[in-house]
Amino acid sequence: MHASDADRSDAWARWESGLTKNAANHQPLSPLNFLARAAQTYPGHTAVIHGGARLDYRGFEERCLRLAHALRRRGIGAGDVVSVLAPNVPCALEAHYGVPMAGAVLHAMNVRLDPATIAYMLDHAQTKCWIVDREFSSLAREALARAKVRPLIVTADDPSFRGGELLAELHYEDLIAEGEPARDWLRPDDEWRAIALNYTSGTTGNPKGVVYHHRGAYLTAMGNVLSTNLGRHAVYLWTVPMFHCNGWCFPWALSLVGGTHVCLRHTRAEAIYDAIEKHGVTNFCGAPTVLNMVVQEGRKRSLELARVVDVATGGAPPPAAILSAMEKAGFRVTHLYGLTETYGPAVFNSWQDAWNDLSADERGAKNARQGVRGPTLEGLTVRDPETLEECPHDGETVGEVMFAGNIVMKGYLADPEATARAFKGGFFHSGDLGVMHADGYIQLTDRSKDIIISGGENISSIEVENTLFRHPHVLEAAVVARPDPLWGETPCAFVTLKPGAPEVSAEELIAFCRSQIAAFKCPKHVVFAELPKTSTGKVQKFVLRERAKQSAR
Amino acid sequence: MHASDADRSDAWARWESGLTKNAANHQPLSPLNFLARAAQTYPGHTAVIHGGARLDYRGFEERCLRLAHALRRRGIGAGDVVSVLAPNVPCALEAHYGVPMAGAVLHAMNVRLDPATIAYMLDHAQTKCWIVDREFSSLAREALARAKVRPLIVTADDPSFRGGELLAELHYEDLIAEGEPARDWLRPDDEWRAIALNYTSGTTGNPKGVVYHHRGAYLTAMGNVLSTNLGRHAVYLWTVPMFHCNGWCFPWALSLVGGTHVCLRHTRAEAIYDAIEKHGVTNFCGAPTVLNMVVQEGRKRSLELARVVDVATGGAPPPAAILSAMEKAGFRVTHLYGLTETYGPAVFNSWQDAWNDLSADERGAKNARQGVRGPTLEGLTVRDPETLEECPHDGETVGEVMFAGNIVMKGYLADPEATARAFKGGFFHSGDLGVMHADGYIQLTDRSKDIIISGGENISSIEVENTLFRHPHVLEAAVVARPDPLWGETPCAFVTLKPGAPEVSAEELIAFCRSQIAAFKCPKHVVFAELPKTSTGKVQKFVLRERAKQSAR
Repeated sequence: MHASDADRSDAWARWESGLTKNAANHQPLSPLNFLARAAQTYPGHTAVIHGGARLDYRGFEERCLRLAHALRRRGIGAGDVVSVLAPNVPCALEAHYGVPMAGAVLHAMNVRLDPATIAYMLDHAQTKCWIVDREFSSLAREALARAKVRPLIVTADDPSFRGGELLAELHYEDLIAEGEPARDWLRPDDEWRAIALNYTSGTTGNPKGVVYHHRGAYLTAMGNVLSTNLGRHAVYLWTVPMFHCNGWCFPWALSLVGGTHVCLRHTRAEAIYDAIEKHGVTNFCGAPTVLNMVVQEGRKRSLELARVVDVATGGAPPPAAILSAMEKAGFRVTHLYGLTETYGPAVFNSWQDAWNDLSADERGAKNARQGVRGPTLEGLTVRDPETLEECPHDGETVGEVMFAGNIVMKGYLADPEATARAFKGGFFHSGDLGVMHADGYIQLTDRSKDIIISGGENISSIEVENTLFRHPHVLEAAVVARPDPLWGETPCAFVTLKPGAPEVSAEELIAFCRSQIAAFKCPKHVVFAELPKTSTGKVQKFVLRERAKQSAR
Repeated sequence: MHASDADRSDAWARWESGLTKNAANHQPLSPLNFLARAAQTYPGHTAVIHGGARLDYRGFEERCLRLAHALRRRGIGAGDVVSVLAPNVPCALEAHYGVPMAGAVLHAMNVRLDPATIAYMLDHAQTKCWIVDREFSSLAREALARAKVRPLIVTADDPSFRGGELLAELHYEDLIAEGEPARDWLRPDDEWRAIALNYTSGTTGNPKGVVYHHRGAYLTAMGNVLSTNLGRHAVYLWTVPMFHCNGWCFPWALSLVGGTHVCLRHTRAEAIYDAIEKHGVTNFCGAPTVLNMVVQEGRKRSLELARVVDVATGGAPPPAAILSAMEKAGFRVTHLYGLTETYGPAVFNSWQDAWNDLSADERGAKNARQGVRGPTLEGLTVRDPETLEECPHDGETVGEVMFAGNIVMKGYLADPEATARAFKGGFFHSGDLGVMHADGYIQLTDRSKDIIISGGENISSIEVENTLFRHPHVLEAAVVARPDPLWGETPCAFVTLKPGAPEVSAEELIAFCRSQIAAFKCPKHVVFAELPKTSTGKVQKFVLRERAKQSAR
């Protein structure tokens, strides 16, 4: 205790007297201001490419302003929710600006959910307006039949899709036309105001509504630019869905650098390579399975990239083998990590110069670790979930990964208990288990719900998957727990082989694993099958767990 | 007026209920956190180079922590002022972290001031501790004789200077040794707390104490990284004094990218080129006169840069001729603009791709404009100083440049009247006159105090200087008002010629100007003389104005 601490507030008196906040020296941080600056500075630069259509920043801003004005004219404003059910097409992008410019809160919905869950979210969010892309009109219709709310429905009749039906008379383009490009949009009166709502599927119970504020969205966008090599006039390909943590906040980050959005309705490997060639894509993001897809396609085409393309990967721990394959194919991969609750990217595997001297595989292993806190995150630690004691930095002691800082959510909407639980003791409890290495990099050992406990021993399903990935004929692998009368659980592997690979037996794969890792960690069962995935290529482990459970009966 | 605006606070109720700020999701923005992150992520990377000495990030952080702890042990803490009288040597750099880590406010003093002004500042700031480099010990001694305060004096006995005396028994290195590298430094309880105090010399009266807060310093550092090509592990040469707007906030920005500070006691052209060659400098900043110096030295040495070096220039409007000469010499120049009140850089001349097709001279002219608001500045306008009406974007209507946003000072310390005047109507009034071009770029026509009014016509001294710079034999030129019985004022030019240039007469230069600009704008008097400059190479116009006045008697 120091003498100077005691009279702290008195000590600051002369630094506060007459030095108050006013419009000249204090304004709420908001990513919405990035667009105004981009449109003023680079009005003629291409903001959005969608198929054959292009929109410059002047035009992009104008459409966002019109959307905001039209919503307000229809009585949708401060605190109201506008839900969007769409893939990565322009209406979803414009909603990231136009909706909060009306003072409303953007709710980007996962298009792969079932009608009951969609209905639950509409009711929980109290959606006032719902923008629905025609590809998902039947899903929307079924959800509406179950929901209590009656939102204004807006049909997005995007030219990149011809199927589906038109759900409502009000078309998105008509709504845009209703509004004026008015610059007196509703600025947030406080940077702590909500800007977006993102539902996250818990392990049990109903999805929780994660609330983002303007301050956090502003800072996450800044952090992305600093950490993912997003340069001036970057050309960004939309492979991460905008309904995942608002596209990891890249809709806002791009305006900071006057970049170009390249929209993409369906994330497919050919389309990714086509966009790189045609539009000079400089950056994209994706889950590890998207990277795997890209690697396979690259081999098929035997293409060489004309220039290094920066790729940020996250959403699941990437196998080291995929990271080194990407590097060999000419991509520079930034591995990042975060959760819906942390606006997506919060942790980055910051590259160390010393790693340049390692082999490609060793570099991949270094980069497979989740990393260190990003520039806009204040705290990242691994702690005992109960005592909150910090784990030693030994790369071995498993604890829960915890976050603290300005890019952590406000909390869960209308769920004070879950919010309090998540913030217990002043840390955000991620639910992810990991270790802290001696060099300060964290590494996930497993999502806590994914851990397999067999005969009292913890098994990391990721470690088993990484082992399988090293087998020369394995294309994809996912490992889950299978109930076992003797051991409690045993690892069960679901595997797909590379096209054209020779037949491999389950016994051979198990023997291969035994040559690499401890016997108790090796799969007891191997199933050769197509892996069920989300729209973004994340393996749906809950489906596999269900299959493993069925097979054990 | 929209229906949705009326019940705005009610509308937000469900977004605030149970969603309060806590340690997990809200922490004061502070640039001090950047150092902790850099030290954790890149502990072995070189943080500071000073002569033959090097310090890595682990060591740099340790010294800053020790400084903070030692200050607190000596009773210096929250709200106290630590003044520093030093050139760009490590103690000044360490003070940017160690002083605010003690909760104290850093006051970096201009070493070129006179003892009376220094004494005024010490008293006004109520300095508790004063770190004095040995080069400036006699200045400090004279100031102390006049000052009322009796601060703890700390002598910085830096090995790069052997003259001067040692003013006090307590040496800076002893102070560092007193402290422990304790990580429980005094974090700001609010991002609005003062972090630094920078005196700015007004046109009349005493200097005013500009107060910076943690939030603004954090955001300015972020903006610098985004706008000046400050890449990962940048090597930054210290040519801008750290006592100018805290070195334009680069002491903090460098930690964001894990960069290396190259210290430099005296800004000289040879030393700049030496550092580029020896340390691989990637970035430096400087006033236009520093750039001019660099261009001349480059010609003398006929050196070619091994790689592009990024230079940010500001502090005075750069002549287009210097910008294009720098470009030809292989430098990439970012022109920025700001004031002490805006933490230094707030406006950047964002490069437009279309300019690449212009000639070097035309590119220089485009880049000579001050630019657009930086990514962390919310508002930049040109307005009528009285009515506050915005000037048309016509590149002709002269008004006052005004700022609004989070990188504008808290206000002037203990001067509520000046603060209120500066923030009148919700804008920060810069006192600089300029125009807004149709493309949204501002251009200064003149600092208001520098404008020359002759026969009722306003003359921009910058325009006259730019004209003189175009003369092939002119090295430097400064134009001020000279009192005139007939015209009120007339332009008087002070000129130095390039070394080895043939003799040029005053008449010839005036004739040259007449061939370029309107007759009334041309100098009536030309004086060939060395230009008086500040330590950073800014021409001291007030000295020249005095000389012009004397000569007119």
